Amino acid sequence: MKDNNEKKLRVAVCGATGYTGIELLRILMHHPHVEVTAVTSEKSAGKRVHELFAFLSAYAGLVYEPMVREKLLAKADLFFLALPHGASQEAVHYLFSNNKTVIDLSADYRLTDPGTYAEWYGLLHNYRKTLKKAVYGLPEINRKKIRKAKLIANPGCYPTSAILGLMPALRGKLVNPDALIIDSKSGTSGAGRKADLAVSFCEVNEGFKAYGLVTHRHTPEIEQELSALAGKKIFVNFTPHLLPVDRGILTTIYAPLIKKADTMAALKLYARAYAEEPFVRVLPEGVLPNIKNVRGTNICEIGVKVNPRTNTLIIVSAIDNLVKGASGQAVHNMNLIMGFNETLGLEQTAFFP
Amino acid sequence: MKDNNEKKLRVAVCGATGYTGIELLRILMHHPHVEVTAVTSEKSAGKRVHELFAFLSAYAGLVYEPMVREKLLAKADLFFLALPHGASQEAVHYLFSNNKTVIDLSADYRLTDPGTYAEWYGLLHNYRKTLKKAVYGLPEINRKKIRKAKLIANPGCYPTSAILGLMPALRGKLVNPDALIIDSKSGTSGAGRKADLAVSFCEVNEGFKAYGLVTHRHTPEIEQELSALAGKKIFVNFTPHLLPVDRGILTTIYAPLIKKADTMAALKLYARAYAEEPFVRVLPEGVLPNIKNVRGTNICEIGVKVNPRTNTLIIVSAIDNLVKGASGQAVHNMNLIMGFNETLGLEQTAFFP
Amino acid sequence: MKDNNEKKLRVAVCGATGYTGIELLRILMHHPHVEVTAVTSEKSAGKRVHELFAFLSAYAGLVYEPMVREKLLAKADLFFLALPHGASQEAVHYLFSNNKTVIDLSADYRLTDPGTYAEWYGLLHNYRKTLKKAVYGLPEINRKKIRKAKLIANPGCYPTSAILGLMPALRGKLVNPDALIIDSKSGTSGAGRKADLAVSFCEVNEGFKAYGLVTHRHTPEIEQELSALAGKKIFVNFTPHLLPVDRGILTTIYAPLIKKADTMAALKLYARAYAEEPFVRVLPEGVLPNIKNVRGTNICEIGVKVNPRTNTLIIVSAIDNLVKGASGQAVHNMNLIMGFNETLGLEQTAFFP
Amino acid sequence: MKDNNEKKLRVAVCGATGYTGIELLRILMHHPHVEVTAVTSEKSAGKRVHELFAFLSAYAGLVYEPMVREKLLAKADLFFLALPHGASQEAVHYLFSNNKTVIDLSADYRLTDPGTYAEWYGLLHNYRKTLKKAVYGLPEINRKKIRKAKLIANPGCYPTSAILGLMPALRGKLVNPDALIIDSKSGTSGAGRKADLAVSFCEVNEGFKAYGLVTHRHTPEIEQELSALAGKKIFVNFTPHLLPVDRGILTTIYAPLIKKADTMAALKLYARAYAEEPFVRVLPEGVLPNIKNVRGTNICEIGVKVNPRTNTLIIVSAIDNLVKGASGQAVHNMNLIMGFNETLGLEQTAFFP
Repeated sequence: MKDNNEKKLRVAVCGATGYTGIELLRILMHHPHVEVTAVTSEKSAGKRVHELFAFLSAYAGLVYEPMVREKLLAKADLFFLALPHGASQEAVHYLFSNNKTVIDLSADYRLTDPGTYAEWYGLLHNYRKTLKKAVYGLPEINRKKIRKAKLIANPGCYPTSAILGLMPALRGKLVNPDALIIDSKSGTSGAGRKADLAVSFCEVNEGFKAYGLVTHRHTPEIEQELSALAGKKIFVNFTPHLLPVDRGILTTIYAPLIKKADTMAALKLYARAYAEEPFVRVLPEGVLPNIKNVRGTNICEIGVKVNPRTNTLIIVSAIDNLVKGASGQAVHNMNLIMGFNETLGLEQTAFFP
Repeated sequence: MKDNNEKKLRVAVCGATGYTGIELLRILMHHPHVEVTAVTSEKSAGKRVHELFAFLSAYAGLVYEPMVREKLLAKADLFFLALPHGASQEAVHYLFSNNKTVIDLSADYRLTDPGTYAEWYGLLHNYRKTLKKAVYGLPEINRKKIRKAKLIANPGCYPTSAILGLMPALRGKLVNPDALIIDSKSGTSGAGRKADLAVSFCEVNEGFKAYGLVTHRHTPEIEQELSALAGKKIFVNFTPHLLPVDRGILTTIYAPLIKKADTMAALKLYARAYAEEPFVRVLPEGVLPNIKNVRGTNICEIGVKVNPRTNTLIIVSAIDNLVKGASGQAVHNMNLIMGFNETLGLEQTAFFP
Repeated sequence: MKDNNEKKLRVAVCGATGYTGIELLRILMHHPHVEVTAVTSEKSAGKRVHELFAFLSAYAGLVYEPMVREKLLAKADLFFLALPHGASQEAVHYLFSNNKTVIDLSADYRLTDPGTYAEWYGLLHNYRKTLKKAVYGLPEINRKKIRKAKLIANPGCYPTSAILGLMPALRGKLVNPDALIIDSKSGTSGAGRKADLAVSFCEVNEGFKAYGLVTHRHTPEIEQELSALAGKKIFVNFTPHLLPVDRGILTTIYAPLIKKADTMAALKLYARAYAEEPFVRVLPEGVLPNIKNVRGTNICEIGVKVNPRTNTLIIVSAIDNLVKGASGQAVHNMNLIMGFNETLGLEQTAFFP
Repeated sequence: MKDNNEKKLRVAVCGATGYTGIELLRILMHHPHVEVTAVTSEKSAGKRVHELFAFLSAYAGLVYEPMVREKLLAKADLFFLALPHGASQEAVHYLFSNNKTVIDLSADYRLTDPGTYAEWYGLLHNYRKTLKKAVYGLPEINRKKIRKAKLIANPGCYPTSAILGLMPALRGKLVNPDALIIDSKSGTSGAGRKADLAVSFCEVNEGFKAYGLVTHRHTPEIEQELSALAGKKIFVNFTPHLLPVDRGILTTIYAPLIKKADTMAALKLYARAYAEEPFVRVLPEGVLPNIKNVRGTNICEIGVKVNPRTNTLIIVSAIDNLVKGASGQAVHNMNLIMGFNETLGLEQTAFFP
């Protein structure tokens, strides 16, 4: 361990009034080796964290400040950026260039090809050299690279659930990567914390709909990572839906088998692939994930079943979009980079109900 | 019209304390040509409808009775059976043999092949001659047959949403019927009205899960009807999920294109197919269904989109599982059989929010 | 009846994209004597109703227009105003002065004392003569006056539930009017349709809180009407709370008994008071209201019980805040003014679940 | 501290498949000085905890056993009893008589007068000597007694919220104890984990109702403790309501002032009374509690306001019914008895949203 009680890691959270920012503060509150030394917010600058969020009582002294880069630089050694995409590009570059460790929760450094980024986000990428230094922060795939990284592109919530669901099947050449269907359903916190009629209670409650059909920006991110696993360029059908719950993503994946396999064989493959992973729970035969079982935790639950009538592998994965799909994974990445115990700060159990 | 105000159609609802039974009573309350003359319930026999369900105030005089077939026979001319599967088999046969018109909301007369029924429901079918008389009551497909029928097998809720979603594409030979993915999400009323920990508030609320993976009993029903539309025997991947809402089914369907088509072409095909249908609403380009928009109504909303990157037609359909997926469709069938205006009793608008 | 099929009443709905405006359109869709000839909205001017709200399919031809008074004047004979308070003052005056019938759903003409209005709403009332012409539109109290009125101040949602709950007890001198506790809980649609973080799904869902403690603007409206019933000026404790549901207000009222009475005696008093009322349902002993039983209806459910240990009458009332608490009551008022059957357009049953 | 890592306290949880039992296991999972050595369940005997509740992953080795008293005796030193009332009476007596420390979460040992218990619970109390040894386990009132106790009657959820809300006002002689109104609203987990139509999703969701009017069994418990604080026998109006959320109780209390006081004076009194309490958070002026802010935590939030128009003190308190209202308070009591740090195991933060 590189750390001790006397000298904690100084951490800043930029964009700390949104759901992922608040979630970072919640998780870091219980991290023994971390001290949050700065939080930024343009709108709430001058207010105390505790004033806005009484349950974050441990941060009694912490005051929001506007994001003035030069001022921030001295205040922390590691920066979590929970800013909107576009807004992150330059900030990441600045901090990284000044030798800070950066974990970026936006999409700005996830796509390795700036052309794809331009196509889906409608923005030019102005920091291509820095982009090349970014490591895609999915520990179950990139643990070794993450340990040595100084710049993490923290994965999107939908991609996390899709990639973890497909990784063993693709690596094991069990399924045809050219005909993958990824049907995802997300809780409303995935839309962010904002004044917007579309996410107001009465519009969402008792409703359910698909959105972003064919055009959702997580599509190229999923394709990039699955292509790497498949060893060839692939396209996927990815459809997100909006669930009337606070938290959670459940992703149902359909993949045509190209090897003979029954459910037990598939389960063995998955169990083996994730045997050493502290945050992936492969469920026994006949048990299926429920987003309620992973709420508030960094766990990804996975259930698999073979449909012998159609020769299809069906995979269901569940995560908390704000934890394993964002802030929890970001802290996991920090733990890896700093050489801390991987699970520090992330031991919280789901509560039930 | 075969009816007038002086002589209303006498109707019995068997199994009238479950959600579909109550929904039948709600709809029939506003039907100008119908008088509900008998309601059955074993547990609530002797109680007045109004006593259990104060909002069904128009039935002040109606008392639940146990289902004694001989007694019931004289009380009505048309029978809605909202009984569990298995329990319906014999009752349908008895009433039908005694020249009554029967609309069966159970699964007992939906599968034309008794072998398939035995395989999926674990029950022998003892009335094969009667089974042959049953017409599958999906008006958009079987309107003519329904008009002449005396025995209707009212479709299941999931099958209704899947078949309406696929009918134009299959009839138009637009998609490959051998690789269909049907991913459905249903509100909790679909599980029925019962004391069961699995549907208790705290287990369902803030949760979301898949269930009945590969084994759900609506699978052979979907396959039977889609096979008829495709002109060949097909198998499908059908996955139901449980939504933490009262009502509604949203079904997302993935079908590989076998003809060149863009979204506008697909929309035209769908709009034409349903142009005359009072209860199907094909949405304009860019608009997608939401279960909240069809709550309490007999409407099926359909949105379609072509994914040109994967050459796939994506169809999203939404219904209220208790109305278009059960009791509303049953009343629609009654209207057709009796020669009433098709939409009588079914004009109710969704309320919002 | 002053109306027939050939010549329907021409009605305008001003502010027809908010929840009460949409609800007016939903109810009026099924009203046999009404034609909606104009709808206003500043933001959505130029769009068709049907485009924004597909379920309002009957209004295919209706297009939103900005509220240009002179233009509107010729288009309708009766105006529903579903505008924010303050915005209604002048519009009501203009339409009323031009001999139109006006039903104002805002608070602007509810308080008879302009001083009280100024104190609680922070606005001067500039049309005091017009204000004197307004009738408080609670049919159970003011039916006769409403029948002759040309200007209706449609009651607030909380006041409707409180006043109906207390009217028989106050008129019957059963309780002490000087120590009334009115504890109300409202669904989120009561806050209106708007982009506002405070009513976003993730802030409201799984939460519950009191708000507007001591300062809520419905307080003087409740006091004004209860004072009239009590025959003396009274003050009340009124506390609103925010429920994570779409619709419904449940109000629990505590009133010290000043006469000897048990639950049966109180129930008789209530049953007698409301015996002729089509929209008030006094529940039998031991049965209590639930907002779910009145959703989408114009019904007010009332249950009462005496606590003999504290000598207190406890009254629970439930309404749908958008129907009996707003748009349904407004249509009821229109029916009274026009001499239509009182229940026209308002027969819709609650659906369950 | 009486404990160390080598020798943990051996704890049994009896009735460990209900919501309070599961919650005890969740909390104790993170308690550094405790080892759970036995869990009982009649229905699930033989199954592993982990099998039923995958998120309780730390209890991989623990197997449910039937409650055979003699067998249990040797297995633990401290017993949490999360059994239904009535079932606890004899079990508590047996364990206590055998020198075990017992924390009883049922109502069986809360009422000091066996006559009151018989009247409200319909059961005779057979262990009156043991009953006299029980300490009512509300640490904010009885901390000193709890420290020396061997038998704790853990408070009910509603009483906890009511008593904490009123304690400073009653001790400070600020309000009239003879006219208290306690209006409580509880999440559905308060009804327990059971197969029961009344708590099924579709009956509870989008609904809200009062229940147990005048007759709820927590009434005498509230009156017993408030009488002690008031120094005289009092009766209260207590009304529980059912909220469509998983967790949380919000209690709104109305108390007539008998001293002159404004909101600031009342707030000072409350802040002083709870200044040293780790689990009570008195909110600043203008801020009111929300059950969402205390979910999953042992915190009681309290807001107060004076209504000068009616001379009434209004108090709003919020707790998580399963934590501060049950299992968290039970662990707090254990910490006090064992001399552990009071907050051990109870540091969990609410998550948001």
